Amino acid sequence: MKIAILGGTGSIGEGFALRWAQDDEIIIGSRRPEKAKSAADRYLSEMESCGFDMSGIKISGLDNHDATKRADLIVLTVMFEHVLTLIEEIYDALENKILVTPVVPMKRIEDHFIYSPPPQGSAALAIKEAVPTSTRVVSVYHNIAARKLKDMECEMEYDAVICSDDEDAKKILFNLTHEIGCLRPLDGGPLAVSNMVESITPLLLNLAKMNGLEDISIRFC
Amino acid sequence: MKIAILGGTGSIGEGFALRWAQDDEIIIGSRRPEKAKSAADRYLSEMESCGFDMSGIKISGLDNHDATKRADLIVLTVMFEHVLTLIEEIYDALENKILVTPVVPMKRIEDHFIYSPPPQGSAALAIKEAVPTSTRVVSVYHNIAARKLKDMECEMEYDAVICSDDEDAKKILFNLTHEIGCLRPLDGGPLAVSNMVESITPLLLNLAKMNGLEDISIRFC
Repeated sequence: MKIAILGGTGSIGEGFALRWAQDDEIIIGSRRPEKAKSAADRYLSEMESCGFDMSGIKISGLDNHDATKRADLIVLTVMFEHVLTLIEEIYDALENKILVTPVVPMKRIEDHFIYSPPPQGSAALAIKEAVPTSTRVVSVYHNIAARKLKDMECEMEYDAVICSDDEDAKKILFNLTHEIGCLRPLDGGPLAVSNMVESITPLLLNLAKMNGLEDISIRFC
Repeated sequence: MKIAILGGTGSIGEGFALRWAQDDEIIIGSRRPEKAKSAADRYLSEMESCGFDMSGIKISGLDNHDATKRADLIVLTVMFEHVLTLIEEIYDALENKILVTPVVPMKRIEDHFIYSPPPQGSAALAIKEAVPTSTRVVSVYHNIAARKLKDMECEMEYDAVICSDDEDAKKILFNLTHEIGCLRPLDGGPLAVSNMVESITPLLLNLAKMNGLEDISIRFC
């Protein structure tokens, strides 16, 4: 698949790029194409220095619109505050694509975080409302610690809950989740229940801070 | 401690009673005292048949009001729909007590559950508003599978996130959680963020049903 990772120059974007590049073509998207290109080059060097066979590995960098246009599937690794503006910019390129949202709307109140969804009820539903009707929205990967995703030797298995109203898109995300290697995909139901998955992220941040834990993710067992 | 388990004739109440009776005095509460008494007798027989030393084990059954009056700490193992009526009935007996809520307001929509909090934002905040100001409310044990709690040989360790505005009450719940044996207590922050813990329960029910899992709980790792 051709996967665009928008906001892919950040830490979580890097994790996805390194993990998926072994099986898929990766296009890093950024507002500034030169920044995207330099991140893509950095990820290629990292993979090379980790000893990967680089023949067939494709990671490139483009601006967000061109990255979206080139891809079959787009992952939004940007903050909720920027997501609707970004969608406006790439709107026409989203037609008939799969759009993956790990986006979590949250706020800091004193020493802790709270889940702060928009009027639609969740980031996923706000995004669904903002994209073309032909775009299939999948909500997943909210609760994965960036540092663990980047660590190619991480052997623990965490859970990735997948919510979508499109069963085929859900299946594609099941496969992509297996490709990542340290994640178990779980069917979370329709997009309407994405709020119950998104709201775990501020909880994880609070638990980490208040209990001296680091980079925690989640496991249902 | 003297612990009242209101609605303690149900499956989750049974788990708490069996676990805590080894260290604490347990009072099962029910609308009908004879039902509470017969549950208490059943739990005593179960413990005896499991080979526990029964000297010093105290489990009794009373109506909800008398159970609350007798206890230092009260656990509400009733459905959200019944909780505010119950609190009205026991209101005066709640003065200066610790009230523990594992209550989750949820609804079934077609084949899945959604979190359905009251206007206050969570069951915990609605309960806090309904009790005397001297009552210290602690929100915990929402995400524990009843069957695992009852299974005295269950060796897996799950997480119990504790939210409260009272640090001393939180400490007491940390200790009680350690006594349970299969749970790790975690500080979740103030009562105001209980919604992020409560909403995991309908998610667990959906995940269990949609992925062929059974009695799942949660682990942050």
